[in-house]
Amino acid sequence: MNRQMVINTLGHITLAAGALMTLPTLVSLICGEYRVMWSFLIVIAIALALGLLMKFVTKPTSKIIYAREGFVIVSFSWIMMSLIGALPFTISGEIPSYIDALFETVSGFTTTGASILTDVESMSYGLLFWRSFSHWIGGMGVLVFVMALIPNIPDRAIHIMRAEMPGPEVDKILPRARDTAKILYIIYIALTVIEIVLLKLGGMPLFDSVVHTFGTAGTGGFGIKADSIASYNPYLQWVITIFMLIFALNFNLYFLLIIGRIRSVIRSSELWCFVIIVLASVGIVSLNVFHIYGSFSETLRASAFQVASIISTTGFATTNFDLWPGLSKAILLFLMIVGGCAGSTAGGLKVSRIIILMKAVFRELKKALHPRSVRVVKMEGKKVDEQVLSGVTSYFTVYVLCIIVIFILLSIEPVSVETNLSATLACFNNIGPGLDAVGPTLSYAEYSPFSKLLLSAAMLLGRLEILPLILGLNPLLWKKR
Amino acid sequence: MNRQMVINTLGHITLAAGALMTLPTLVSLICGEYRVMWSFLIVIAIALALGLLMKFVTKPTSKIIYAREGFVIVSFSWIMMSLIGALPFTISGEIPSYIDALFETVSGFTTTGASILTDVESMSYGLLFWRSFSHWIGGMGVLVFVMALIPNIPDRAIHIMRAEMPGPEVDKILPRARDTAKILYIIYIALTVIEIVLLKLGGMPLFDSVVHTFGTAGTGGFGIKADSIASYNPYLQWVITIFMLIFALNFNLYFLLIIGRIRSVIRSSELWCFVIIVLASVGIVSLNVFHIYGSFSETLRASAFQVASIISTTGFATTNFDLWPGLSKAILLFLMIVGGCAGSTAGGLKVSRIIILMKAVFRELKKALHPRSVRVVKMEGKKVDEQVLSGVTSYFTVYVLCIIVIFILLSIEPVSVETNLSATLACFNNIGPGLDAVGPTLSYAEYSPFSKLLLSAAMLLGRLEILPLILGLNPLLWKKR
Repeated sequence: MNRQMVINTLGHITLAAGALMTLPTLVSLICGEYRVMWSFLIVIAIALALGLLMKFVTKPTSKIIYAREGFVIVSFSWIMMSLIGALPFTISGEIPSYIDALFETVSGFTTTGASILTDVESMSYGLLFWRSFSHWIGGMGVLVFVMALIPNIPDRAIHIMRAEMPGPEVDKILPRARDTAKILYIIYIALTVIEIVLLKLGGMPLFDSVVHTFGTAGTGGFGIKADSIASYNPYLQWVITIFMLIFALNFNLYFLLIIGRIRSVIRSSELWCFVIIVLASVGIVSLNVFHIYGSFSETLRASAFQVASIISTTGFATTNFDLWPGLSKAILLFLMIVGGCAGSTAGGLKVSRIIILMKAVFRELKKALHPRSVRVVKMEGKKVDEQVLSGVTSYFTVYVLCIIVIFILLSIEPVSVETNLSATLACFNNIGPGLDAVGPTLSYAEYSPFSKLLLSAAMLLGRLEILPLILGLNPLLWKKR
Repeated sequence: MNRQMVINTLGHITLAAGALMTLPTLVSLICGEYRVMWSFLIVIAIALALGLLMKFVTKPTSKIIYAREGFVIVSFSWIMMSLIGALPFTISGEIPSYIDALFETVSGFTTTGASILTDVESMSYGLLFWRSFSHWIGGMGVLVFVMALIPNIPDRAIHIMRAEMPGPEVDKILPRARDTAKILYIIYIALTVIEIVLLKLGGMPLFDSVVHTFGTAGTGGFGIKADSIASYNPYLQWVITIFMLIFALNFNLYFLLIIGRIRSVIRSSELWCFVIIVLASVGIVSLNVFHIYGSFSETLRASAFQVASIISTTGFATTNFDLWPGLSKAILLFLMIVGGCAGSTAGGLKVSRIIILMKAVFRELKKALHPRSVRVVKMEGKKVDEQVLSGVTSYFTVYVLCIIVIFILLSIEPVSVETNLSATLACFNNIGPGLDAVGPTLSYAEYSPFSKLLLSAAMLLGRLEILPLILGLNPLLWKKR
């Protein structure tokens, strides 16, 4: 492994972490929260010192980044960002336990939105901003962000993007990885600005509009009210519903729209599959919960919001869906697994993977009848390579295995199976709230430190799609060659 | 499809169902239960009439059975056997609802052992015998049994065995399918006799020894006491523990032992993997439940019995494991998924499939690092064909999909997530008792008729390993050609 280059890049990331914290520092200053501001300034100083040290003690003789360097850089960047990002919470004294602060920060960067806070409304503006801003940073990817901004990053950096971007395969929209990263970030920023404006126009205060947009854009879900989005007006709830879905779609579709290839967008089978799953879920849930809300419009709004929130893996809530009937709760658990589209900021298994898995199953059914026939799996009109196919089926296996292992380890906790199972699914798929004792009106505060670290690891595994993290943390990879 | 041949074979199966019922009829006669005896005689008459009709109205011009005929025959045989087998319960009046009787019979033939009986001790001997005998028949396979007995079955019948035998691939021990079936049945009968003798020697009444052996051999789990096996002495509990494990091993191993190929047995990676899972589970559960039992021997006995019962998918119980701590219950849920070895009478995913899945995952990890390398998956020293590999991964996908769909549909029931999830796993993997409201001291009686039919379908799907049933019930396959 090219150790010099890896440490050098991690230095860049550490510097970036410090730089990103200037924004919440500014918020603290404006709001007159000097104690919080100083906490941020201390951490910025630490990040600067550490980052410069890592940058200048290393002398990368080669700038080439192979797959293995990509995995190691991505794994350690996310851990580093989380470790540094958690410091202001503890230094300011607002989250005294560092493990709790780490859980909250990992939950932020991984866009999970699971919280250990029992009284979110007592938090300072500066830290609430940082919490939600971490969603926005983590949504598109920490490294993609750094790559888009900092020059001198080698162009083999596609390996980093592959490791960090959600979905089975990163399409290079443009031939150079950095240009692709820039285009994606421009779309991301544009959509963010539009949502802030639409929320502000609907009467939401500016601060609320910004943090909720961060939560929506990253499909994170940290709110600033005890009841999440429930106290905002119906217009605002609908805006957030629609934007949660927008950010759960493949960003390539927006790029295709911009360059006028509307037919390619309409032909996207992932898009249609996602739309059908959303409509079917909203329909069934609406019928199932109508007796709770009574009016048609309120039922539809509650169903659509919660379905969009869960399938996009955001985790906002406008109602306590833990009180819904079993069928609706089972559908929500299922949507946790489905997740958004590939190439979005959403978590979960991803719709495109599910389509490929279904096609592989149908091929197997046909093979059982006609053992000697050779069949090709197609997607979006193109043949799916057998390598990609076996990659997706193996991913699914290791995905289910992770859920089982995390669930078993979490079962040491003396809470219900429903709590532990939904906590596992909600953290691993980066949703946030679960059911029962981790339902939308409650928090993860009651879990033991061990379980909080376990679930933090689950969030990172889910966000980085398992393999990069497993490989990147494997010491066998760190050997010099 | 060769319809004449399919209906003709189904006629044979119906006749066999009638013939098999003579045994419980005899038990009823001996015990003086004349009402039950007459119920059996009526059903035998119906089966004879129906079977002869199907046999003689059809004139199969060709005796060839292809894969598609195999799937259709297997699917309809199991449904036919269950429909006929349920009649005596309802005709005798002991299970008044036919849906309940059907659930109980499907649970019997699929060797699940899930029961709707709330007072098993009030049942007649004849019906208790039939219930447990259905485990014994279903364990090795209804059709394999018929094939072993009835002459004139075409030799292409390997397609039937493939569809009915558990595990990823049926090894033909002997070149002719019928000879293989005979060898397997001889081993099965020998082990059954040995267990009956060992139980009888330990002081268990003969009737109890026979029915409990049927339940162990088929890895079914129907008992005749309200507390299952709890009231029998420790020796008897250990005998049953060991035989549950014996019947969960691949029967090919016993064949290899008989012909003296001991090295092949010792080298079996599936055997070792199974042993390690059992030992690890017993170890963790013992540590976790020690405070409940106090003494070392009692803890070990309870842990070993329950672990053996669940991993072998039998479902007997010597303690109410629903009262165990969360970690132990999570391990039991995990063992429900694992199941026994391929080529045994056990259900579940099967250990050999799990090994193949793990190897596929490791290959994928290596591929991520060395994208251009070509790697071969090996098992038991032989290369695993890519066809088998993609078959196993697709099977796993459709397996998980089935669990999700059954769980969502079952969630219409107003009971806990723990109940519905464990009921889904326990029925689909052919275990029997689940947790919470379907725990080992309770029954499935409270479920609605819809859910009972749903779980019956789940049991059949699990027993026939999904694909044969899905394909066999697909009307597109029934077309003449």
